Amino acid sequence: MINDVIGTVFYPRNVAVIGASESRDNMGKNIVQNLLDHHFQGEVFPVGPKGGSIFGLTVYPSVLDIPENIDFAAMITPARTVPDLVGQCGKKGAKVIYIATGGFREFNSENVDLETEILAQARRYDVRLIGPNCIGVINSEIGLCLPFSAIPPLKIGPVSILSQSGGVANSYLMHLFAENIGVNKWVSMGNKLDLEETDFIEYLLEDPWTQVICVHSEGLKMGKRLLELAQSSTKPIILHKVSRFGATAEVADSHTAAIANDDRLIDAICRQGPIVRAGTINEAVNYAKAFILPKLNGNRLAVVSRSGGHGVIATDFCVKYGFEMPPYNDEYLKRVEEFFRAKVVKTANPLDLGDLWNFESYWYILENAIKQDQFDGMLFVFAYNLVQQHELMVNTTIFLSELIRRYNKPIAFVLQGWKDRVDRLRESVSFPVFSEIDEAVKALATSRDFYRKKSMNT
Amino acid sequence: MINDVIGTVFYPRNVAVIGASESRDNMGKNIVQNLLDHHFQGEVFPVGPKGGSIFGLTVYPSVLDIPENIDFAAMITPARTVPDLVGQCGKKGAKVIYIATGGFREFNSENVDLETEILAQARRYDVRLIGPNCIGVINSEIGLCLPFSAIPPLKIGPVSILSQSGGVANSYLMHLFAENIGVNKWVSMGNKLDLEETDFIEYLLEDPWTQVICVHSEGLKMGKRLLELAQSSTKPIILHKVSRFGATAEVADSHTAAIANDDRLIDAICRQGPIVRAGTINEAVNYAKAFILPKLNGNRLAVVSRSGGHGVIATDFCVKYGFEMPPYNDEYLKRVEEFFRAKVVKTANPLDLGDLWNFESYWYILENAIKQDQFDGMLFVFAYNLVQQHELMVNTTIFLSELIRRYNKPIAFVLQGWKDRVDRLRESVSFPVFSEIDEAVKALATSRDFYRKKSMNT
Repeated sequence: MINDVIGTVFYPRNVAVIGASESRDNMGKNIVQNLLDHHFQGEVFPVGPKGGSIFGLTVYPSVLDIPENIDFAAMITPARTVPDLVGQCGKKGAKVIYIATGGFREFNSENVDLETEILAQARRYDVRLIGPNCIGVINSEIGLCLPFSAIPPLKIGPVSILSQSGGVANSYLMHLFAENIGVNKWVSMGNKLDLEETDFIEYLLEDPWTQVICVHSEGLKMGKRLLELAQSSTKPIILHKVSRFGATAEVADSHTAAIANDDRLIDAICRQGPIVRAGTINEAVNYAKAFILPKLNGNRLAVVSRSGGHGVIATDFCVKYGFEMPPYNDEYLKRVEEFFRAKVVKTANPLDLGDLWNFESYWYILENAIKQDQFDGMLFVFAYNLVQQHELMVNTTIFLSELIRRYNKPIAFVLQGWKDRVDRLRESVSFPVFSEIDEAVKALATSRDFYRKKSMNT
Repeated sequence: MINDVIGTVFYPRNVAVIGASESRDNMGKNIVQNLLDHHFQGEVFPVGPKGGSIFGLTVYPSVLDIPENIDFAAMITPARTVPDLVGQCGKKGAKVIYIATGGFREFNSENVDLETEILAQARRYDVRLIGPNCIGVINSEIGLCLPFSAIPPLKIGPVSILSQSGGVANSYLMHLFAENIGVNKWVSMGNKLDLEETDFIEYLLEDPWTQVICVHSEGLKMGKRLLELAQSSTKPIILHKVSRFGATAEVADSHTAAIANDDRLIDAICRQGPIVRAGTINEAVNYAKAFILPKLNGNRLAVVSRSGGHGVIATDFCVKYGFEMPPYNDEYLKRVEEFFRAKVVKTANPLDLGDLWNFESYWYILENAIKQDQFDGMLFVFAYNLVQQHELMVNTTIFLSELIRRYNKPIAFVLQGWKDRVDRLRESVSFPVFSEIDEAVKALATSRDFYRKKSMNT
């Protein structure tokens, strides 16, 4: 079963790091350091012909010298050495090998032979391969962190990432962490000589720690299987398929030996799946944020805005994305008006709180909006100077989580303010925060449409 | 001439702040504080019936008590008091009054009479009005800062902002400052009872310190004049016209008494102008960044990317937005390959620098790319861990400014990395930095199309 293999990828008992040495620029050493820095819960065996020790760990001259059988090998050695080393790992019982090394098919068509040889060795010993030409695997749950460049402390969370490009995989990690959204599992797939998107997706659809799957791909081999997998589950898959044009396909081929896809075929698969298609990393992350929230069971939004101008903009996007904005209860609006200072702002949906300076009343206003039966969810836009009130904003954001639990309706929270204040708030809470109104509304609409389609297909 | 009036708006010799008192929540006091904090280069006269003093300045019980004539009055008093106060300011020689007070037409249709009265008083004394229902004016050049909430230190720069909504005007300021892009002049226009977009645009088109004009509008009254102004100049105007749908128009009316526009008419004006139409604040800011760069005199881009995967993405967007990517000179590519470590990456356009670890060679690579005659501009994507090398990145970014001057070609610089590192770099340089590849390419294309259209029209 593929899920046993991928289980070993994410939860190996030990990792051999092949190509490690004490020298300053050694990349294998960086992998060992990442495993130690992130407190990997298994054993680490550095391997390199020069021997010695790294961070107090013995460097074994060969995989065969390791005193016990291995689960997982990370390999960063010259391309020509890889086939033999794969065989040696096979002999030591490795279930899976991640080959970081580049310079195969994507560099030179003659190197196809080298890839064939590697694959033959792998098949012979029943070892599965990740890569080559990739930067490895992360599983935040157990501190498994295999890229060969330094990764700062991981944030554990509900989003898992698959990426063909290592650079793009890194960008996803950096983007999600900047938003204070945790990553659960993360794979850079590179040339996909053996394991590819659908192998990992099959596992992640069953993984209880993964709530949303983002997939960056430069060329999909298994469109039909992807479609079947998507149809087998209600867990959202966000597909960021790049290399959309003929001119790009050539570039992608020399990057990860990616096969060319007809972009319309990809669209057709997404439509049927349903799979959410994202055009950029930023878009994929925004969709992921919406999918972390509870499902929107309808189409009617309560809009609350700190500023009238942002309320106008929110209305534009609610109309554009097909949301309804039913009126608030009269009684509720009367109560809200009592909180106002100058009493010169009309209340309606969107609710303009520009005249509200008693920020303590936000809790009352938010809860009594979301609980009204005519709303399926809420868009809360807080665009403000935010010079003080850090504590209050933190508590209000935590209260949003509580409201979501209490009423099981999504709240898309858009926050705009002076950068340092927004950053500080984001660091203090783990609630998904949107930067832009259009992005929040589009993400809510994408989530709505995904579940609508799912319910029609079942 | 309107430009004399607007000249007084931005460069008044003095400002009377009417509605100021010592009490804790007084908003007039906040205006005085902003003027002092930002070192306004003219005189400040607080005015309020209770007298006393604020921050060491005498509070005059009435405008009429101010010992000299005034240029500019900022007014934040109850709506019913405004007509008389406008008359008093007129008597004291005021050329222009900014009325912060809300609660006029936008709140209650009966208050149209109050607005008529205000306008009559203004006409009588030949005073022009900004607002009502707005948050004032900023001119970074002289520390004129009139919002009634605290504004942190201003960054002076080439972008000027006009906004119907005060909240949105604030969001523009916060967004630009977060990108370390300076703002020159800034007006929150509110209900636009008197002065409106085109009055300010006419001035800003001539203003030597303003390079790009961003305009947020909920309802344009003077479409024809806007078109004529746009056609009279090559200075870019970015129009962020919101309230695009019937359902939004009602909301906008109760926010700033905005008139409804047919959105297709706005599109037609933009097409003819040409005026750049932006759908969001983020989009407007990205366009502004492209317009700060030199004009793109053609359609051919050199693409340089730290990562192959980002090169693939860049190619997708270059194709999408109609750019050509001619090949680099062979000799140049050979020289670049000498810098590589593992020699396992093919060189082409996009130039994938994933195998380059000698970061000092970037300067050579960048300069010798942009100088090649077959390129009109460059897209430089640096997506990287960026754990060290802060100094090097700062110097490289400063070097980009130097290259732009030396070769008079634009370089769109996309930077992705760990948030703290990116923030630190952005704070250290004043070069426009893009966060996303798609945004950078779209902004370059927008600038290209703007100037193409301009050159066809002349």
